Amino acid sequence: MRTEEARAKTIERLEREGIVLRGDEKERVEVADFGLGRLGEIGLQLVVYVNNSRYCAKEMVLFPHQTCPEHCHPPVDGGEGKMETFRCRHGKVYLYVEGEDTTGRNCDPPAGNEEYYTVGREIALSPGDQFTIPASTKHWFQAGSSGAVISEFSSPSRDELDVFTNPAIER
Amino acid sequence: MRTEEARAKTIERLEREGIVLRGDEKERVEVADFGLGRLGEIGLQLVVYVNNSRYCAKEMVLFPHQTCPEHCHPPVDGGEGKMETFRCRHGKVYLYVEGEDTTGRNCDPPAGNEEYYTVGREIALSPGDQFTIPASTKHWFQAGSSGAVISEFSSPSRDELDVFTNPAIER
Repeated sequence: MRTEEARAKTIERLEREGIVLRGDEKERVEVADFGLGRLGEIGLQLVVYVNNSRYCAKEMVLFPHQTCPEHCHPPVDGGEGKMETFRCRHGKVYLYVEGEDTTGRNCDPPAGNEEYYTVGREIALSPGDQFTIPASTKHWFQAGSSGAVISEFSSPSRDELDVFTNPAIER
Repeated sequence: MRTEEARAKTIERLEREGIVLRGDEKERVEVADFGLGRLGEIGLQLVVYVNNSRYCAKEMVLFPHQTCPEHCHPPVDGGEGKMETFRCRHGKVYLYVEGEDTTGRNCDPPAGNEEYYTVGREIALSPGDQFTIPASTKHWFQAGSSGAVISEFSSPSRDELDVFTNPAIER
Protein backbone atom coordinates (compact mmCIF):
# COMPACT_ATOMS: atom_id res chain seq x y z
CA MET A 1 0.00 0.00 0.00
CA ARG A 2 1.25 3.47 -0.85
CA THR A 3 1.08 6.53 1.35
CA GLU A 4 -1.61 8.27 -0.68
CA GLU A 5 -3.79 5.18 -0.71
CA ALA A 6 -3.37 4.81 3.06
CA ARG A 7 -4.25 8.46 3.59
CA ALA A 8 -7.42 8.10 1.50
CA LYS A 9 -8.45 4.95 3.36
CA THR A 10 -7.85 6.67 6.69
CA ILE A 11 -10.04 9.62 5.76
CA GLU A 12 -12.71 7.25 4.45
CA ARG A 13 -12.70 5.27 7.71
CA LEU A 14 -12.96 8.36 9.87
CA GLU A 15 -15.81 9.71 7.75
CA ARG A 16 -17.61 6.40 7.94
CA GLU A 17 -17.41 6.58 11.74
CA GLY A 18 -18.75 10.13 11.82
CA ILE A 19 -15.44 11.73 12.82
CA VAL A 20 -15.17 15.04 11.01
CA LEU A 21 -11.83 16.41 9.79
CA ARG A 22 -11.34 19.82 8.23
CA GLY A 23 -9.82 20.00 4.76
CA ASP A 24 -6.38 21.03 6.05
CA GLU A 25 -6.44 18.17 8.55
CA LYS A 26 -7.16 15.67 5.79
CA GLU A 27 -4.09 16.92 3.94
CA ARG A 28 -1.86 16.39 6.93
CA VAL A 29 -3.04 12.91 7.92
CA GLU A 30 0.25 11.24 8.79
CA VAL A 31 1.05 7.83 7.39
CA ALA A 32 3.95 6.16 9.22
CA ASP A 33 5.57 3.07 7.74
CA PHE A 34 8.46 3.35 10.21
CA GLY A 35 10.93 3.05 7.35
CA LEU A 36 10.19 -0.66 6.96
CA GLY A 37 8.30 -0.54 3.65
CA ARG A 38 5.60 -2.95 4.84
CA LEU A 39 2.88 -0.41 5.53
CA GLY A 40 -0.08 -2.77 5.26
CA GLU A 41 1.39 -4.93 8.03
CA ILE A 42 3.50 -2.47 10.03
CA GLY A 43 2.26 1.07 10.11
CA LEU A 44 0.06 3.67 11.70
CA GLN A 45 -2.13 6.47 10.39
CA LEU A 46 -2.86 9.46 12.56
CA VAL A 47 -4.04 13.03 12.73
CA VAL A 48 -2.80 15.27 15.53
CA TYR A 49 -5.51 17.60 16.80
CA VAL A 50 -3.36 19.47 19.29
CA ASN A 51 0.14 19.11 20.69
CA ASN A 52 1.31 21.93 22.92
CA SER A 53 3.59 22.27 25.95
CA ARG A 54 0.96 20.78 28.26
CA TYR A 55 -1.04 18.07 26.46
CA CYS A 56 -1.62 16.28 23.18
CA ALA A 57 -4.60 14.64 21.44
CA LYS A 58 -4.66 12.56 18.27
CA GLU A 59 -6.92 10.24 16.33
CA MET A 60 -5.22 7.05 15.18
CA VAL A 61 -6.39 4.58 12.54
CA LEU A 62 -5.15 1.04 12.05
CA PHE A 63 -6.04 -1.11 9.07
CA PRO A 64 -7.07 -4.74 9.67
CA HIS A 65 -4.27 -6.58 11.49
CA GLN A 66 -1.88 -3.65 11.02
CA THR A 67 0.72 -3.38 13.80
CA CYS A 68 2.31 -0.34 15.41
CA PRO A 69 5.73 -1.64 16.38
CA GLU A 70 7.10 -1.90 19.92
CA HIS A 71 8.49 1.32 21.37
CA CYS A 72 8.66 3.42 24.48
CA HIS A 73 8.65 7.13 25.25
CA PRO A 74 11.74 7.93 27.32
CA PRO A 75 12.11 10.80 29.81
CA VAL A 76 12.52 14.15 28.04
CA ASP A 77 14.28 17.33 29.16
CA GLY A 78 14.69 16.06 32.70
CA GLY A 79 10.95 15.38 33.02
CA GLU A 80 8.96 12.16 32.84
CA GLY A 81 8.38 10.30 29.61
CA LYS A 82 5.15 10.61 27.69
CA MET A 83 2.10 9.12 29.37
CA GLU A 84 -0.80 8.22 27.10
CA THR A 85 -4.36 6.97 27.23
CA PHE A 86 -5.72 4.92 24.34
CA ARG A 87 -9.47 5.00 23.94
CA CYS A 88 -10.85 2.57 21.39
CA ARG A 89 -13.62 4.28 19.41
CA HIS A 90 -14.36 1.72 16.69
CA GLY A 91 -13.16 -1.74 15.74
CA LYS A 92 -10.86 -3.61 18.08
CA VAL A 93 -7.28 -3.11 19.16
CA TYR A 94 -4.97 -5.41 21.07
CA LEU A 95 -2.41 -3.57 23.11
CA TYR A 96 0.69 -5.27 24.48
CA VAL A 97 2.56 -3.83 27.44
CA GLU A 98 5.15 -4.84 30.01
CA GLY A 99 4.01 -7.40 32.55
CA GLU A 100 3.25 -11.10 32.68
CA ASP A 101 2.73 -12.56 29.20
CA THR A 102 -0.92 -13.33 28.44
CA THR A 103 -1.53 -16.99 27.64
CA GLY A 104 -3.26 -17.60 24.30
CA ARG A 105 -3.00 -14.03 23.16
CA ASN A 106 -4.86 -12.82 20.08
CA CYS A 107 -2.02 -11.41 17.95
CA ASP A 108 1.36 -12.40 16.69
CA PRO A 109 4.12 -9.93 15.89
CA PRO A 110 4.75 -9.30 12.18
CA ALA A 111 6.46 -12.30 10.58
CA GLY A 112 10.24 -12.19 10.69
CA ASN A 113 10.26 -9.39 13.26
CA GLU A 114 9.46 -11.50 16.32
CA GLU A 115 12.66 -10.58 18.14
CA TYR A 116 11.64 -6.92 18.25
CA TYR A 117 8.40 -7.64 20.12
CA THR A 118 9.43 -8.37 23.70
CA VAL A 119 6.37 -7.47 25.80
CA GLY A 120 3.29 -9.66 25.86
CA ARG A 121 0.74 -8.62 28.45
CA GLU A 122 -2.42 -8.26 26.34
CA ILE A 123 -5.03 -5.55 26.86
CA ALA A 124 -7.97 -6.06 24.47
CA LEU A 125 -9.86 -2.85 23.77
CA SER A 126 -13.35 -2.75 22.27
CA PRO A 127 -15.24 0.49 21.57
CA GLY A 128 -15.55 2.49 24.79
CA ASP A 129 -12.64 0.70 26.45
CA GLN A 130 -9.48 2.59 27.30
CA PHE A 131 -6.11 2.01 28.90
CA THR A 132 -3.46 4.38 30.21
CA ILE A 133 0.14 3.42 29.44
CA PRO A 134 2.54 4.66 32.13
CA ALA A 135 5.62 6.65 31.09
CA SER A 136 8.66 4.72 29.84
CA THR A 137 6.69 1.48 29.36
CA LYS A 138 7.36 -0.59 26.25
CA HIS A 139 4.24 -1.24 24.18
CA TRP A 140 2.97 -2.26 20.75
CA PHE A 141 -0.47 -2.73 19.33
CA GLN A 142 -2.33 -4.44 16.53
CA ALA A 143 -5.85 -4.02 15.14
CA GLY A 144 -8.38 -6.81 14.86
CA SER A 145 -9.95 -7.94 11.61
CA SER A 146 -11.98 -4.78 11.03
CA GLY A 147 -9.19 -2.34 11.85
CA ALA A 148 -9.52 0.24 14.61
CA VAL A 149 -10.02 3.91 15.36
CA ILE A 150 -8.34 5.00 18.59
CA SER A 151 -8.27 8.38 20.31
CA GLU A 152 -5.03 9.10 22.11
CA PHE A 153 -4.99 11.60 24.98
CA SER A 154 -1.53 12.25 26.39
CA SER A 155 1.14 14.47 27.79
CA PRO A 156 3.04 16.38 25.07
CA SER A 157 4.13 14.22 22.17
CA ARG A 158 7.62 14.19 20.66
CA ASP A 159 7.44 11.25 18.30
CA GLU A 160 10.97 11.83 17.03
CA LEU A 161 12.32 10.78 20.43
CA ASP A 162 10.46 7.45 20.58
CA VAL A 163 12.74 4.49 21.13
CA PHE A 164 11.85 1.47 19.02
CA THR A 165 12.97 -2.04 19.88
CA ASN A 166 13.78 -2.69 16.20
CA PRO A 167 16.91 -0.62 15.44
CA ALA A 168 16.01 -0.53 11.74
CA ILE A 169 13.00 1.66 12.43
CA GLU A 170 13.05 5.33 11.46
CA ARG A 171 10.20 7.48 12.72
CA MET B 1 -35.50 19.49 32.70
CA ARG B 2 -34.43 17.09 35.43
CA THR B 3 -31.02 15.54 35.85
CA GLU B 4 -32.10 12.05 34.82
CA GLU B 5 -33.80 13.33 31.70
CA ALA B 6 -30.70 15.33 30.79
CA ARG B 7 -28.49 12.30 31.33
CA ALA B 8 -30.70 10.17 29.09
CA LYS B 9 -30.72 12.83 26.37
CA THR B 10 -26.94 13.13 26.58
CA ILE B 11 -26.45 9.41 26.14
CA GLU B 12 -28.93 9.38 23.28
CA ARG B 13 -27.12 12.22 21.51
CA LEU B 14 -23.72 10.57 21.88
CA GLU B 15 -25.08 7.26 20.59
CA ARG B 16 -26.69 9.00 17.65
CA GLU B 17 -23.31 10.49 16.76
CA GLY B 18 -21.56 7.12 17.00
CA ILE B 19 -19.67 7.94 20.21
CA VAL B 20 -19.58 4.80 22.32
CA LEU B 21 -19.71 4.91 26.13
CA ARG B 22 -19.33 1.90 28.40
CA GLY B 23 -22.15 1.12 30.82
CA ASP B 24 -20.28 2.56 33.81
CA GLU B 25 -19.55 5.73 31.87
CA LYS B 26 -23.23 6.19 31.07
CA GLU B 27 -23.99 6.02 34.77
CA ARG B 28 -21.50 8.74 35.60
CA VAL B 29 -22.46 11.22 32.88
CA GLU B 30 -22.31 14.49 34.80
CA VAL B 31 -25.15 16.95 34.54
CA ALA B 32 -24.20 20.40 35.82
CA ASP B 33 -26.89 23.00 36.43
CA PHE B 34 -24.42 25.19 38.32
CA GLY B 35 -26.87 25.51 41.19
CA LEU B 36 -29.11 27.84 39.18
CA GLY B 37 -32.04 25.49 38.58
CA ARG B 38 -32.38 26.49 34.92
CA LEU B 39 -30.73 23.45 33.37
CA GLY B 40 -32.33 23.69 29.93
CA GLU B 41 -30.91 27.19 29.51
CA ILE B 42 -27.81 27.16 31.71
CA GLY B 43 -26.07 23.85 32.05
CA LEU B 44 -23.55 21.38 30.72
CA GLN B 45 -23.45 17.61 30.33
CA LEU B 46 -20.13 15.81 30.26
CA VAL B 47 -18.30 12.56 30.62
CA VAL B 48 -14.69 12.58 31.75
CA TYR B 49 -12.62 9.95 29.97
CA VAL B 50 -9.39 10.57 31.84
CA ASN B 51 -8.12 13.15 34.31
CA ASN B 52 -4.70 12.45 35.78
CA SER B 53 -1.77 14.53 36.99
CA ARG B 54 -0.68 15.31 33.42
CA TYR B 55 -3.73 15.68 31.15
CA CYS B 56 -7.49 15.45 30.90
CA ALA B 57 -10.00 14.53 28.19
CA LYS B 58 -13.79 14.84 28.23
CA GLU B 59 -16.76 14.71 25.93
CA MET B 60 -19.23 17.55 26.47
CA VAL B 61 -22.82 17.80 25.25
CA LEU B 62 -24.90 20.96 25.06
CA PHE B 63 -28.61 20.97 24.30
CA PRO B 64 -29.97 23.49 21.77
CA HIS B 65 -29.10 27.04 22.90
CA GLN B 66 -27.90 25.79 26.29
CA THR B 67 -25.19 27.99 27.83
CA CYS B 68 -22.18 27.07 29.94
CA PRO B 69 -21.75 30.17 32.08
CA GLU B 70 -18.72 32.46 32.11
CA HIS B 71 -15.78 31.27 34.17
CA CYS B 72 -12.03 30.97 34.21
CA HIS B 73 -9.52 28.44 35.48
CA PRO B 74 -7.12 30.18 37.84
CA PRO B 75 -3.52 29.14 38.57
CA VAL B 76 -3.36 26.07 40.80
CA ASP B 77 -0.70 24.97 43.28
CA GLY B 78 1.75 27.58 42.08
CA GLY B 79 1.47 26.36 38.47
CA GLU B 80 -0.42 27.75 35.52
CA GLY B 81 -4.19 27.58 35.23
CA LYS B 82 -5.93 24.99 33.13
CA MET B 83 -5.42 25.29 29.38
CA GLU B 84 -8.03 23.63 27.19
CA THR B 85 -8.79 22.88 23.57
CA PHE B 86 -12.40 22.63 22.45
CA ARG B 87 -12.96 20.54 19.34
CA CYS B 88 -16.47 20.70 17.93
CA ARG B 89 -17.52 17.21 16.82
CA HIS B 90 -21.19 17.73 15.95
CA GLY B 91 -23.65 20.62 15.90
CA LYS B 92 -22.39 24.13 16.43
CA VAL B 93 -20.96 25.95 19.41
CA TYR B 94 -20.31 29.63 19.90
CA LEU B 95 -17.44 30.32 22.25
CA TYR B 96 -16.89 33.73 23.83
CA VAL B 97 -13.48 34.73 25.15
CA GLU B 98 -11.57 37.81 26.22
CA GLY B 99 -10.70 40.24 23.43
CA GLU B 100 -12.47 42.74 21.27
CA ASP B 101 -16.26 42.22 21.26
CA THR B 102 -17.55 40.70 18.03
CA THR B 103 -20.10 42.89 16.27
CA GLY B 104 -23.39 41.16 15.52
CA ARG B 105 -22.61 38.08 17.53
CA ASN B 106 -24.81 35.01 17.33
CA CYS B 107 -25.76 34.47 20.98
CA ASP B 108 -27.10 36.41 23.88
CA PRO B 109 -26.39 35.55 27.51
CA PRO B 110 -29.24 33.89 29.41
CA ALA B 111 -32.00 36.40 30.17
CA GLY B 112 -31.60 38.24 33.46
CA ASN B 113 -27.97 37.12 33.82
CA GLU B 114 -26.42 39.57 31.37
CA GLU B 115 -24.17 41.18 33.96
CA TYR B 116 -22.34 37.89 34.51
CA TYR B 117 -21.30 37.60 30.85
CA THR B 118 -18.50 40.11 30.39
CA VAL B 119 -16.42 38.76 27.48
CA GLY B 120 -17.68 38.93 23.91
CA ARG B 121 -15.09 37.90 21.35
CA GLU B 122 -16.96 35.21 19.39
CA ILE B 123 -15.36 32.04 18.07
CA ALA B 124 -17.89 30.02 16.04
CA LEU B 125 -17.02 26.33 15.90
CA SER B 126 -18.51 23.91 13.37
CA PRO B 127 -17.65 20.19 13.26
CA GLY B 128 -13.89 19.81 12.83
CA ASP B 129 -13.15 23.30 14.14
CA GLN B 130 -11.27 23.75 17.37
CA PHE B 131 -9.92 26.52 19.57
CA THR B 132 -7.43 26.54 22.43
CA ILE B 133 -8.32 28.73 25.38
CA PRO B 134 -5.22 30.05 27.15
CA ALA B 135 -4.91 29.64 30.92
CA SER B 136 -6.74 32.13 33.15
CA THR B 137 -8.90 33.45 30.29
CA LYS B 138 -12.57 34.12 30.97
CA HIS B 139 -14.90 32.26 28.62
CA TRP B 140 -18.46 31.04 28.15
CA PHE B 141 -20.15 29.11 25.39
CA GLN B 142 -23.57 28.37 23.94
CA ALA B 143 -24.78 25.76 21.48
CA GLY B 144 -26.60 26.52 18.25
CA SER B 145 -30.10 25.32 17.42
CA SER B 146 -29.16 21.64 17.11
CA GLY B 147 -27.04 21.47 20.26
CA ALA B 148 -23.39 20.43 20.18
CA VAL B 149 -20.96 17.66 21.00
CA ILE B 150 -17.52 18.96 21.92
CA SER B 151 -14.35 17.07 22.82
CA GLU B 152 -12.20 18.85 25.37
CA PHE B 153 -8.48 18.11 25.56
CA SER B 154 -6.69 19.89 28.39
CA SER B 155 -4.19 20.06 31.18
CA PRO B 156 -5.47 18.45 34.41
CA SER B 157 -9.00 19.49 35.36
CA ARG B 158 -10.07 20.63 38.81
CA ASP B 159 -13.59 21.86 38.18
CA GLU B 160 -14.16 22.65 41.83
CA LEU B 161 -11.65 25.51 41.56
CA ASP B 162 -13.28 27.21 38.57
CA VAL B 163 -14.11 30.85 39.19
CA PHE B 164 -17.50 31.87 37.82
CA THR B 165 -18.43 35.48 37.14
CA ASN B 166 -21.85 34.91 38.68
CA PRO B 167 -21.27 34.56 42.45
CA ALA B 168 -24.49 32.55 42.83
CA ILE B 169 -23.01 29.65 40.90
CA GLU B 170 -22.03 26.46 42.68
CA ARG B 171 -20.09 23.90 40.71
